[in-house]
Amino acid sequence: MRLVVVGGVAAGTKAASRARRLDPEMEITIYQEEPEPSISECGLPYLLSGVVGKRENLVARTPEKFAKNDIEVLVRHRVEKIDTSGKKVSVLDLKTGEAFEDTYDRLVIATGARAVLPPIPGAQLEGVFKLRFLTDSDEIGRYIKEHSPKKATIVGGGYIGLEVAENLCRLGMEVSLIEGEDRVALAYGREVSDRVEAELASHGVGVYTGERVEEFTGEGRVRSVKFGSAELETDLVIVGVGIRPNVELAAEAGLEIGTTGTIRIDRHMKTSTPDVWAAGDCVETTNLVSGRPAWVPLGDTANQMGRVAGTNAATGEDTLEFPGVLGTGIFKVFDLAVGKTGLSEREAAEAGFEVVSAGLDAYDRAAYYPGASKVFLKLIADRATGRLLGAESAGRGAAKLTDICATALWGGLSYPDLVNIDLAYSPPYGPALSPVIQAATILSGKFERAKEGVRASE
Amino acid sequence: MRLVVVGGVAAGTKAASRARRLDPEMEITIYQEEPEPSISECGLPYLLSGVVGKRENLVARTPEKFAKNDIEVLVRHRVEKIDTSGKKVSVLDLKTGEAFEDTYDRLVIATGARAVLPPIPGAQLEGVFKLRFLTDSDEIGRYIKEHSPKKATIVGGGYIGLEVAENLCRLGMEVSLIEGEDRVALAYGREVSDRVEAELASHGVGVYTGERVEEFTGEGRVRSVKFGSAELETDLVIVGVGIRPNVELAAEAGLEIGTTGTIRIDRHMKTSTPDVWAAGDCVETTNLVSGRPAWVPLGDTANQMGRVAGTNAATGEDTLEFPGVLGTGIFKVFDLAVGKTGLSEREAAEAGFEVVSAGLDAYDRAAYYPGASKVFLKLIADRATGRLLGAESAGRGAAKLTDICATALWGGLSYPDLVNIDLAYSPPYGPALSPVIQAATILSGKFERAKEGVRASE
Repeated sequence: MRLVVVGGVAAGTKAASRARRLDPEMEITIYQEEPEPSISECGLPYLLSGVVGKRENLVARTPEKFAKNDIEVLVRHRVEKIDTSGKKVSVLDLKTGEAFEDTYDRLVIATGARAVLPPIPGAQLEGVFKLRFLTDSDEIGRYIKEHSPKKATIVGGGYIGLEVAENLCRLGMEVSLIEGEDRVALAYGREVSDRVEAELASHGVGVYTGERVEEFTGEGRVRSVKFGSAELETDLVIVGVGIRPNVELAAEAGLEIGTTGTIRIDRHMKTSTPDVWAAGDCVETTNLVSGRPAWVPLGDTANQMGRVAGTNAATGEDTLEFPGVLGTGIFKVFDLAVGKTGLSEREAAEAGFEVVSAGLDAYDRAAYYPGASKVFLKLIADRATGRLLGAESAGRGAAKLTDICATALWGGLSYPDLVNIDLAYSPPYGPALSPVIQAATILSGKFERAKEGVRASE
Repeated sequence: MRLVVVGGVAAGTKAASRARRLDPEMEITIYQEEPEPSISECGLPYLLSGVVGKRENLVARTPEKFAKNDIEVLVRHRVEKIDTSGKKVSVLDLKTGEAFEDTYDRLVIATGARAVLPPIPGAQLEGVFKLRFLTDSDEIGRYIKEHSPKKATIVGGGYIGLEVAENLCRLGMEVSLIEGEDRVALAYGREVSDRVEAELASHGVGVYTGERVEEFTGEGRVRSVKFGSAELETDLVIVGVGIRPNVELAAEAGLEIGTTGTIRIDRHMKTSTPDVWAAGDCVETTNLVSGRPAWVPLGDTANQMGRVAGTNAATGEDTLEFPGVLGTGIFKVFDLAVGKTGLSEREAAEAGFEVVSAGLDAYDRAAYYPGASKVFLKLIADRATGRLLGAESAGRGAAKLTDICATALWGGLSYPDLVNIDLAYSPPYGPALSPVIQAATILSGKFERAKEGVRASE
């Protein structure tokens, strides 16, 4: 039995390792276009600044380590075609230029996603980068070493842009961030965006929202960025305006593509084609809160999906299920943790819910305990049923609050369930009533008043 | 309508405040034996060492503040008798010695609990203390100021003893801790106890387990503590061997007492007697995991109970419910956070479950992110159904892991539900797969192997 895995980052390597564990006899080959497999891409912003000291630290396992486990990893190999009827893949060895065919009994597609570089004039200038792969980070690192840039510009106020902004500041650069929409961190509500922008400003980052970049200028090397009526000098540009799934290979092979533009799979990570599974940043899953198809390209989800795809590819059965996602995420920007689970108010409204929400700034430990600081939390619920739809948080302790709310969503809890939830209290770790309980209590009060209002008008 | 509240710490003051909010017309009086109401007792160990600088910080609201809200707080007043048929209470003013009667329409009993001082010879010596009230902390503070004790002994290895050990070390004392059982932190499994004992030892605390204190000696002032065959010099003793509920008043008034020795209440915090509610450390609730009566005297729970009791006492109806507890708790000992929710393995076995568990030491953030350290987590589940029964954790990040597991218990999740749970990941805040997911995955593996074992033997 021969398993071929296309793509060797989180989902692909996890699928291969899991298959090996379940079936010691299976032949397993991973084809990976980048020169290293098993990269922790989420760590790249921290490698830029040296917070993560060595690039090796971001390579979870080398091809040699996989080989010890009898998994063949062929890097710098691009799968160019999949023939699902003949169960063959056409492969190009990018080092030698040699093309060859390989066969499979079972196939896992984990082709991931790539960073988008928008067609801005001057985007091809030296000093304009994206940051997706370890090779991108290597290039930026070399550029920084060679040219010692003093002024850097980030294009895009999503989490990648925000993480990079922090890390370039650590290198002593004067950093500006340009975002096309009217606020950064658009996946969140305005309260969180405001806090993120204040955090950026307090660390000296120039924030330009509602501005579209028109041009990068320079002779060979980037020297300025033009937007709106302004122009900023810049020695380095990092573009983080989003990623796009690598689905062309699957689409050309006739695999069904979902409404999000990613590979359609069932709950067992099976594609529309027999003996082909898919996992990671190239697939579509279900948002369990909205019930709608969702594309949520994140490393932890890729890992979990890879486990399911690898298991089922190994057994050839529907052994494990991947139920879907909540859309949980978190990022760090300077001293602010910013987390989210489920739907934002806007997303909930788009999904057809009538929303009730409660936001508050609460202490992250007992108010009298040294170092207590305020953390923002907002709970978002369905007005009709009280069901929790989402939560977002910003501040120290946001990681804990986000995970409490994610678990509550996972358990299908309503906000009245959270008023009396038995969470852990001790002065160094929280206020007597968790911000989650406080927010749920505010929601209950709103609901009581709403009911009174109904009674009064009856 | 007149509401009398007996006891003015967490549950009593919360009940009174909630009643005032719902009914601006109600007459409300709180009788409180201690000289101050609304004390954050959980903060007392930190006041001893000066981590919490001012005692005022632990008084959430003074009688004057309550008065502004039209709530009368009479401190140094002891309610000595409740006449439930005449709806009267007999009160002793401890300042003047004057006795008087008061009447009520509705009564909330929140008499709390008191520290146990076991009948050890010499326990009456100067320098031997318990720590429950702000007045205890005042006395210890005066004693420390006057006698500058160099050697301190803690009797009892529960969370109070452990918190006090840390805080006396901060004052530069040589601290010993004596525990009668064979390990500290008995509410937890042995793995956690081992980690706590190692943490104590690494900070120079002498730990003596399996030792019963036989005598405190000294002339007037304590000079030594004798146990087993050993004797330690000591200048200060703090006894933290447990607390006992203050139920005598309720029992004498004919209120039903439950199997845990605390006041029996229903889900609406009603006692067995009309127009009498009870809340806080003096009542019995339900452990929602075991389904059994439970006495869990903790400040956060008291707060939540007080809200329910105060609401229902104000409306006179079964407006709100308090569903029960999980037994969630957390404490800090030096640099170790130690948290728990649900049942320990021993408690689960006692409750009749056949237990399966998985413990691991996992990183609290991405392994490559600076400062990553190991945190212990154990999940405890019901072998028959997979239902999660409990979790315990020790290390940095234990607060988050405990709260995730508490929320999972609150939602009635099983460990297979936790394998694919969508928690928040970013390198500074956790490993790609949360320790909760890792432990759930180990449990799933055990379960798979157990099934294979069944198949093989079939």
